[in-house]
Amino acid sequence: MNVDSKKIDAFLVELLTQVGENLREDSIKKMSVGTKKNRNDLVTNFDKKTEKFINTRIKEAYPEATIVSEEGYGDLVKDMSGLVFFVDPIDGTMNFVKRGDDFASMIGVYIDGEPLIGAIIDVMDNEIYHGGKEIGLFIDQTPIDIPKNLPLIEGLVDISAPMALANKFDVQEVVKKSSGLRVYGSAGIIFGHLLTGKEVMYMSYLAPWDLAAGRVLCEAAGMSVVSIDDSPINMLESQVVIVGTQKVASEALKTLKAR
Amino acid sequence: MNVDSKKIDAFLVELLTQVGENLREDSIKKMSVGTKKNRNDLVTNFDKKTEKFINTRIKEAYPEATIVSEEGYGDLVKDMSGLVFFVDPIDGTMNFVKRGDDFASMIGVYIDGEPLIGAIIDVMDNEIYHGGKEIGLFIDQTPIDIPKNLPLIEGLVDISAPMALANKFDVQEVVKKSSGLRVYGSAGIIFGHLLTGKEVMYMSYLAPWDLAAGRVLCEAAGMSVVSIDDSPINMLESQVVIVGTQKVASEALKTLKAR
Repeated sequence: MNVDSKKIDAFLVELLTQVGENLREDSIKKMSVGTKKNRNDLVTNFDKKTEKFINTRIKEAYPEATIVSEEGYGDLVKDMSGLVFFVDPIDGTMNFVKRGDDFASMIGVYIDGEPLIGAIIDVMDNEIYHGGKEIGLFIDQTPIDIPKNLPLIEGLVDISAPMALANKFDVQEVVKKSSGLRVYGSAGIIFGHLLTGKEVMYMSYLAPWDLAAGRVLCEAAGMSVVSIDDSPINMLESQVVIVGTQKVASEALKTLKAR
Repeated sequence: MNVDSKKIDAFLVELLTQVGENLREDSIKKMSVGTKKNRNDLVTNFDKKTEKFINTRIKEAYPEATIVSEEGYGDLVKDMSGLVFFVDPIDGTMNFVKRGDDFASMIGVYIDGEPLIGAIIDVMDNEIYHGGKEIGLFIDQTPIDIPKNLPLIEGLVDISAPMALANKFDVQEVVKKSSGLRVYGSAGIIFGHLLTGKEVMYMSYLAPWDLAAGRVLCEAAGMSVVSIDDSPINMLESQVVIVGTQKVASEALKTLKAR
């Protein structure tokens, strides 16, 4: 299949710019709602409304594509053939609800199973990380300096809190060998940290829409994206994933007790 | 002793504005230094240089004051009588070194042992949280909306990573009763989150300079600042401290096994 990567990239940037504007408005509305029950309903509505908006725009621009998305407005996708868009309308919902910052919206595009283009908007900072292996990586219009291949001891790691606290897979051993643990609570925000060298590893249990955009971008930056038992990543299932510099991912796989 | 709180507040804001400019330059210089050893020396130098700069300016403006500070340029302070300035030149040193963001510089001022004025600059965002009980609380020139007295279940908690991972004092029970754990790695940055309602509790082992400014600001915002065994805060010693909404601090004290 012939696809124009640059065109898809430009489409995603334009779309997420609009999504960012809407979500910043939604974030203010959310604050003004009185009771907790109403607030929770509203947040679910924001998630659904945003996904509907994104999926509709994708279907208009790429009617041949299939969509895998979180809130149920996507397609029933059984294989990765053709053009597949993965959509996470609000990533870091708890941060959206409780903090009003450090949440993201993400779209990852794959062609016949291969990572093509990813785009992530840090909504409150209004910065879009986007691009792919073919066309390069950017924050808005600025090319990203590819981060160094640092070893574990030289960087901070970000691990989902439940996993870190329960010491799943002996993950606290990985923390001990690193510069320290951070927990930011949104995959999209953390992918941004990895792409700018602020952190060297992310580990979490991720659904396809949590991982898709970040995988495209981090692989294009020369990083490793591996499942915890070193089996191939399956983009149609959830799995525990390590994303990090090549050195860190290799050290982590050796340290973790996953098998 | 008669002191002009507004004048001290204005002095701190002006001083931290200058410190912020210097540290943003230092952060760029740091990145360009080649070897790790040189980099570590440089960071230590930035810490010392910044403290020297701050302490010199305090001594010029308030020669009668005593200074408690991290890097050794302060006074040997044995009691809290008179005007005492607590100085943390770079708070979140690991974030400064590894991330280049989410670090702070903090000054807390006490009079005869009573919290008077605090000021914290989020260096990379260039925002100063400042004020006190008497004069009110501000981010730069904008008054802070006092955060709601939320219960634990409604908010995110930030706990030092080593404490959370080791489940010290059964602290993971507190996490389970909350909306979730975040780890941002800088007391100053987290005090900013508490003051804007983004998080409802911070717990860590803090030295006097780590706590001083945040204690002034959070108490002025109606929050609780308590030692983990509910004994009075001692500003001349390090201790495990809980800072949070009144409801959260009370729930945490009941939940933790500290005695």
